[in-house]
Order: sequence, then structure tokens, then C-alpha cells
Amino acid sequence: MVKIMQFINGGVTAPKGFKASGIHCGIRKNKTKKDLALILCETECDAAAVYTQNLVYGAPITVTRNNIADGKAYGVICNSGIANTCNADGVEKAEAMCEIVAKATNLKPTDFVVASTGVIGQPINIEPIQNGMAQLVAELSENGSDNAAQAIMTTDTVKKEFAVSFTLGGKECKIGAISKGSGMIHPNMATMLGFITTDANITSEMLKKALLEVVKDSFNMLSVDGDTSTNDTVALLASGLCDNERIETENEDYFTFVNALNAICEKLVKLMAKDGEGATKLVECQVSGAKSKEIAKVCAKSVICSSLVKAAMFGADANWGRILCALGYAGVDIDVNKVDVSFKSKGGEIAVCKDGAGIEFSEEIAKQVLIEDEVYIIVELNDGNYNATAYGCDLTYEYVKINGDYRT
Amino acid sequence: MVKIMQFINGGVTAPKGFKASGIHCGIRKNKTKKDLALILCETECDAAAVYTQNLVYGAPITVTRNNIADGKAYGVICNSGIANTCNADGVEKAEAMCEIVAKATNLKPTDFVVASTGVIGQPINIEPIQNGMAQLVAELSENGSDNAAQAIMTTDTVKKEFAVSFTLGGKECKIGAISKGSGMIHPNMATMLGFITTDANITSEMLKKALLEVVKDSFNMLSVDGDTSTNDTVALLASGLCDNERIETENEDYFTFVNALNAICEKLVKLMAKDGEGATKLVECQVSGAKSKEIAKVCAKSVICSSLVKAAMFGADANWGRILCALGYAGVDIDVNKVDVSFKSKGGEIAVCKDGAGIEFSEEIAKQVLIEDEVYIIVELNDGNYNATAYGCDLTYEYVKINGDYRT
Repeated sequence: MVKIMQFINGGVTAPKGFKASGIHCGIRKNKTKKDLALILCETECDAAAVYTQNLVYGAPITVTRNNIADGKAYGVICNSGIANTCNADGVEKAEAMCEIVAKATNLKPTDFVVASTGVIGQPINIEPIQNGMAQLVAELSENGSDNAAQAIMTTDTVKKEFAVSFTLGGKECKIGAISKGSGMIHPNMATMLGFITTDANITSEMLKKALLEVVKDSFNMLSVDGDTSTNDTVALLASGLCDNERIETENEDYFTFVNALNAICEKLVKLMAKDGEGATKLVECQVSGAKSKEIAKVCAKSVICSSLVKAAMFGADANWGRILCALGYAGVDIDVNKVDVSFKSKGGEIAVCKDGAGIEFSEEIAKQVLIEDEVYIIVELNDGNYNATAYGCDLTYEYVKINGDYRT
Repeated sequence: MVKIMQFINGGVTAPKGFKASGIHCGIRKNKTKKDLALILCETECDAAAVYTQNLVYGAPITVTRNNIADGKAYGVICNSGIANTCNADGVEKAEAMCEIVAKATNLKPTDFVVASTGVIGQPINIEPIQNGMAQLVAELSENGSDNAAQAIMTTDTVKKEFAVSFTLGGKECKIGAISKGSGMIHPNMATMLGFITTDANITSEMLKKALLEVVKDSFNMLSVDGDTSTNDTVALLASGLCDNERIETENEDYFTFVNALNAICEKLVKLMAKDGEGATKLVECQVSGAKSKEIAKVCAKSVICSSLVKAAMFGADANWGRILCALGYAGVDIDVNKVDVSFKSKGGEIAVCKDGAGIEFSEEIAKQVLIEDEVYIIVELNDGNYNATAYGCDLTYEYVKINGDYRT
């Protein structure tokens, strides 16, 4: 049976039971930039999260891990501007954020996922959060996803917000998500900030399983700059209000749910890649014909992470030798003499390498293909049946500019 | 007994028996850029080389491996402009280069190390090499190192050429070297192109051992852009003409030789880092207090390879949080709560992080330190007694510009 799934509006407030808000409270100096977000559910949610594998991780992650150890949460509190990482009193500050929002909502501090994003190593000032909380709670709304999505942005230029609707056992169910990306993006087992809501009725164990399943082919296949952030967090909250039969095993409904979750994460990842710091285009590397899934993934990611490939994509230069080079140093078992490479986009498709060697091609057509804002690097290893896709962007002057003096 | 070692002029022609030359033969369109180099010894040399670990490697590497399998060589022939990699007829072309130079010098084709550097995947035209060979051989000179060093450059802005003199058992001995670096620089077990000559009398087995020993702390600790090239080759030729007692074991003379070789390789590596594509400065990361040598090396290299750290160095921005972040995702066992970080240069020294957390510091002084063209990132792990240094450069607009359209 084919399940109908469609993208809808509403972001994290599309699923039943969720409200959200986002305000400027004063963590950032720029008053036009929102810096504090709240997502709140009217009922207790089953919850799961995945985090960065960086040994240096944000204090909010310590607190969130503890808060959702019971698999339950009511909402998410998140600031942008300061990462609250590498500070001596970070955990106390993150706990204070939870206490402030709990008091304003008549809930417990441990009912919240807490997250921060921004500069590492600068102390976070709790005062603006204290002062802004009444407004943040007052502005909670079923149309508030947009404001929350804006409030978690750092150097992002577009907000990342999607929702999808599908059916579970005849009941209409929704998943909504917001995320922030841009720089220091090279997730490992987890990701940058992503908050996902659903009204599906599903246990926290199955939520965690679904999240891990989806993350490995979506967020973990994304790289903007090869730097794994200290604050990566994806949290998934399920209100259960869509009234489906509670998902407790890997049944058909579970896979329908995973499928929908995957669709939404793929959308987020592509948008985060395209909006990578300074990026002018999405670069996707699709590897097929690998001897194993792992080999396909490592190859795709090696190409996406190559500074030289990224710079060539910025210049719309069909310098495919750099792609072969990146495959060659990926550290996995491939036969380089069997590799075919082509480029694809709205501008057309062009083959540039066959059996590991160059073939003649029109530089003019290659330019037409590569000049587009979504470019696909197609790698056929001709060595097996596994495939994988990695998501990235080009390397530009603007990336250097943004990161040459990010703090000021 | 302390051996006196000093840097001298003359590059690869400083050691006894070696001549060199470099000309424009026409592989490159730009007539002002030399593109063909020859190094030749008057006697047969003991020889050793190390190569890229990239699965995609240049055809010249296949031919050189074969040619020096007997541990002997007379010289080096090298072109720039075209890498002769990922071409169906690459090996025949590389062999043809050896045949042409052998004919002009009355030697055997297998007497030569052959190397190429430049664009991957474009066919190399042998005709200009054939036509230019008579001139190349005619111009061989004891002052020819400079021309050879220029002829192997690609996007390098300064030639890399050093020589050192020292004594072995009372005999004056010399080591000379030229190399090219710039982009696609992230050597793995080998390096970009480097040609080293010596008049020491030493077996090819001991040469190989010395080269592997030195490479792991010099070339392998260098990264410009994280891309391991397809054509990395370091070849070391020993004429034996300095008349020392032949080195056949790891005796005192061997370690004196290794020490001198190390001094010259460190010079090359620092200069290659500083002259990395688009770089405005050398960035060195000195890690100490690690539990093992391997941990120290991995940490130093992780910091040097971080795009975000590199961009911050370009902007002279003391964004030390990115250094902690890079240490955290390095994938080795460190205690992030013990880490101290400071910056050092001719402009001064400033501590910015203690016990994994930020400390107050003067942004003004930090700027003075970081604005210099040689900056040292000092990381103390406070966790053991091992240390390591990695060499890199900043990430700049110019890197993006150079690589956005390298081929045209």
C-alpha cells in the first residue's frame, strides 16, 4: 500500500498540540535579529535527540541529555548569538535557562530541551533571557514556527522550515521541523541544530531509533566546511495527538513514519547545504556502483569535502581530476580505473571521465551545466550495487569573509 | 659530539657531482614560465623515493617505482603544467620522457626518476619535451638548481630551494633540495614534489629509511587544503662523492645524516606552508603534553586543517573556540577540560584559553600577535609528555580565486 505524503506549511507548529515563538531579547546587539526561540506542546511529548560527537560539546547538551533521559519533554528553549560552550559556568547557565522558561510556563525545568548556537568561549548573559521570557511565552502561537526558525539562525541567510503530512492507520499525521546551519557544518552522528515535532503517537525508544536511522543518510552526509560543531543537536518531540495506534515496534506504521521523517530531513539538509556560509550553490555528489554502502558514503563525502572541488564548483570549472583525486584519497577500496564521472543540473548533463581517464567534452556545455545553483556530481564506480549521496556547497570569497572576522 | 651543520647556497647542485637545468619547452603556453627541469649526477647514485598514498596516482609514479626498484638512478626529469594523471596513455608518455632524456645523455631510460605536476586528466604533449631536450641538457650547470626549482613550480609564488652542509666522519657532506607545493597539499606518507640530492655515501636502503623517518614529521605534518595530491613524490639521490665511510647501518653517521635531512625538510615544509595557494601567512600549531606522539600529531593536524581556524587566522581573529572545536573532533583521547591555548608571533604572545575555558585577554594585543606573517598556535594538553608540530597557512580570498578557475 502506497502512503500519500505531501509537504505542507506550518513548520514545527503544523503537528497538533505545538505552539512556537521567537523574539529579540538582547543576547545579540543587533535589535533586528531575533535571538530566542520557544517551542511548546500542550501535552507531554515522547522525546529523543542526537548530539555532536565532538569531545568539546556545549553545556546545553549536558543539560538536555539529563532532561530527556526519561524520554519525555514539553518543549524546546534555544538562543542564538552565543554557543554557551567552553565556559566554566556553562551548565549552570543552561540550567538557568530551563528554570526561567519552566517558571513562566508552570512546568518543570527538566521538561525542556535547551540549546544554544553562536560564538564558542564567550560567557552567555542570562539577564536578557530572564527579561524577555514573559514576551516569548505571551507570543506563543500556532503560527509561530516562522519566528522560532528565524530566532535560531546565525549566519544563515534563509530560514529552514518544513512540514509534511501523511497517514498512519488512516489517521492524518504531521511532522514539522526547523533547523539552522551555515558554518561549522560537518555533522558526525548528529547535526547542527534541528528541532522536529510530530503529532504521531510513538514511544521515545522508537523515536530515537527513527532519528538515528534517518540522520545517517541525511544530516551525517552534509558538509559545509569539514568542521564538526560543538553544539550539534537534533531533537524530535512527539505529542501523540494525531491519535494513531501507538508505534512501539518496527511495524508498517514505523516505516511510514521513518519515510516521512527522512523526506523532511532531506529537505532540511539540502537547504542547509545550499545556504552554507558564503555558498552560491548546492553541490550534491551521487555515488553509485560501490561494493558497500559504507564505501559509497565515504566516497561521496570525500568529494563534497574537497576544498579544491568546492572552489572549482564556485568557478563553474569542470575540473573533474580533483574529483578523481578526492575519490583516490578517500581511504576505501575502489577500482580507480573503472570510475565514470559526469555533471548534471537544470542546465543539462555532461560526461567528463570514463574508466578513470578523461574523455573529450565541450567546455562550453560543461560551463552551462555548472553555472546553475544546484549541481550534481554523478560518480559511477562500476564495482557493485550500493549508492549514497552527500550534500555540500561551493567554497567562495564570501565564506572566507564571513569567517575571517566572525566575532566582530 | 656535536656536529656542526649550516645552511648554504646551491640547492640540489650544492652536493658534489650534481648539475641541473630548467627551461621553457612549451608544455605551458606562457613562455615566461619554465616548465621542464633536469637534475643529473656525473655518477650513478643510490636512490630512494616516497610517493602519494592516493589510489589515483600519476603515471610518472608507476614508471619511477619501476626505474628505481634497483635502488639506483642518475637523475630526475620533471615537467610542470600537466600532471600526466588519469590519462589512458600516461605510462607510455612517462616512459617516453625517460627515453628522450636517456638518449640525450647517453644513459638508460631506467636511470631516471620521472615526475609531472599540473592539471590532472589532460593529455601531456611529448613533442615540446622532445624539442627542448637538447637545450635542457646543454644548459646543465653547477649553478642550475635555481632554474630547475623554477621549472617545477605551478601556482607557487616563490621557489623552494635549500642546501645544508655538515660532516660525516670528518668529511664535509652536503644535502640539497628543491620542491614545489602550493595547492592540493595534504601529503600522506609522502608529499608534493621534492627532489633531494646529497654527496653522502649511503645505501639506498638506508636512504629510504632516513626519508621515511624524516617525512613523517615534516611533509606529512603539512596541509594547505586537506587534498592529498595524486602526484606527490619525494626522491633522494646520493652520489657518494663526499667520500665518507659508506652508511650501511643505523650508526652515528646515519643519525647525523637524518638530522641534516630533517633540517632541510623542515625548511621546505615551512616555506611550502607559507606559500600555500593564496596564503598570507604561515600558521604553525605546536601541541605538547599529549599522552602519545600520535595523539599530539592528530591534534596539531586537526587544528591546521580546520577551514574555520584558517579563515580566522586570515582575519587575525583570536577565535580560539574554533581551535578547541577542532581538537574536540580530532577523534583522539584528550581531556578537553585540561587544554590551554595561546598565540605567539614576532608581535608577542597571548594566552586565550585555560583548562578548556576562555580567559580574559586584550583583543588589541591578540590582533598584534595574529597580524604577523608567521603565527604559532600553542596548544598544551596537560595530559602527558609527547609533542608534535603541524604546518599550514590561512584560508584567503586568493585561494578561492586561484582554484575557482585553475585550468584556464
